[in-house]
Amino acid sequence: MASDPFEQTTQALLALGNHRVWSLIVTLFGDLAQENGTTIDGLTLSAVMTELQVRPEAVRVALHRLRNEGWITSEKIGRTRRHALTQKSRAQSATASARIYASPLPSGGGWQLVILKDTDSIPSGNMLERGFAHLMPRVYLGAGAAIAPKNVVVLQGGDVPVWLGTQIAPTMHTDEYRALLPVLQSVDKKLNGAHLSNLQLAVLRCLIVHNWRRIILRHPPLPCSLLPDKWEGHQCHILVNRLLERFPRPRPNSILPS
Amino acid sequence: MASDPFEQTTQALLALGNHRVWSLIVTLFGDLAQENGTTIDGLTLSAVMTELQVRPEAVRVALHRLRNEGWITSEKIGRTRRHALTQKSRAQSATASARIYASPLPSGGGWQLVILKDTDSIPSGNMLERGFAHLMPRVYLGAGAAIAPKNVVVLQGGDVPVWLGTQIAPTMHTDEYRALLPVLQSVDKKLNGAHLSNLQLAVLRCLIVHNWRRIILRHPPLPCSLLPDKWEGHQCHILVNRLLERFPRPRPNSILPS
Repeated sequence: MASDPFEQTTQALLALGNHRVWSLIVTLFGDLAQENGTTIDGLTLSAVMTELQVRPEAVRVALHRLRNEGWITSEKIGRTRRHALTQKSRAQSATASARIYASPLPSGGGWQLVILKDTDSIPSGNMLERGFAHLMPRVYLGAGAAIAPKNVVVLQGGDVPVWLGTQIAPTMHTDEYRALLPVLQSVDKKLNGAHLSNLQLAVLRCLIVHNWRRIILRHPPLPCSLLPDKWEGHQCHILVNRLLERFPRPRPNSILPS
Repeated sequence: MASDPFEQTTQALLALGNHRVWSLIVTLFGDLAQENGTTIDGLTLSAVMTELQVRPEAVRVALHRLRNEGWITSEKIGRTRRHALTQKSRAQSATASARIYASPLPSGGGWQLVILKDTDSIPSGNMLERGFAHLMPRVYLGAGAAIAPKNVVVLQGGDVPVWLGTQIAPTMHTDEYRALLPVLQSVDKKLNGAHLSNLQLAVLRCLIVHNWRRIILRHPPLPCSLLPDKWEGHQCHILVNRLLERFPRPRPNSILPS
């Protein structure tokens, strides 16, 4: 086992799941190079990916794929290659960032319950995209701001009995938050007061954001009042927010010593 | 077929179902003799029941049963027998009357939706007693004034899509209202401007109230907004109200010529 606290925490974060290389690159660019005009050069990308235990060949394959899909654009200037998000992927990253980097404070905007006419009139995936979580056949819960489809019963939420949180929590990927939480707690503790290099900051943020966004983007944003007390997803949110504040994003061109 | 309009209408009302004798007597006393101190004497009761095509022997058996159950009390004064509601049955009749004789105007008090924790925590019959109609497993609808049980989700109703009325109507005994409606319409038309004797008034009211209460007391009072446009139950309500106003209750001691 690695003795260095930084290595211990990155290994624990990497151990949470098999992270696809192209997806890690999407996370990295979304975190460090979302601003218009920001690029990450080839050497910097290689350095970060090496820390993430990704082989250079795998990085090349993933970059090729991301260019083909219009997610990454690459430009060669002299001996340096510069990679950037495209206009399309920049817009999509911005949309996702609104969820990923949102403050964990309770939104307060209330909640709503929707009842569909029957079980198959509106696909569950469509309801999820609209911000509704599935409680039981025909019945969905959403934040007050979610836009319900037409021709359904929409009711504004009130008091929440404890069992409702218990019943909706499994659809909110609580199991995955439960796995992430102790790792984040360990990062919080082990790197308390740590001084990290810019490369380490880039790597650590990438791993935190990556593990976080893989869960949070797959369920709708429900207000805390609808979920159990001390819900793991909310506790993860608080820790992610705290760690990203404590370990701010480095400028991409400052990651390697010049 | 009877040629007299009154006979035609009473036969149509009698044909709606096999009316139990004791239940007809409960209706009659509830309609004519609910006020404290009011009695119906044996001859009057016999005359009404004869018009209702009930044999004297069946009346005797039913009265015996109703006395045993504490619903009717009978007193012999000279050669006359006087029957009356007991304190208990008077109170129960008054409770039922609040529904039976209620105005058909929309109550306006809104509606609510209740979701139970699971399918078997609260029996459906208990929810019905509380004034809630069963929409689907775990989900009930009630008037705004209904008192929900504890530890459930309670949501105040808003706009109602058409399909909600269509789905809740079958639980509101709509089939039976659909059978009653043309008979009431026929009574309304055939007895328009008719001058009825007090005996006929007592018989007609008894049949109208009886057929009406057999349905309305078996479902909760939901606001019109929750039910389909031109819902048969609401149309019956309007006609029952109109007919009972047009044909007022006679005093029991005025039913037979003195």
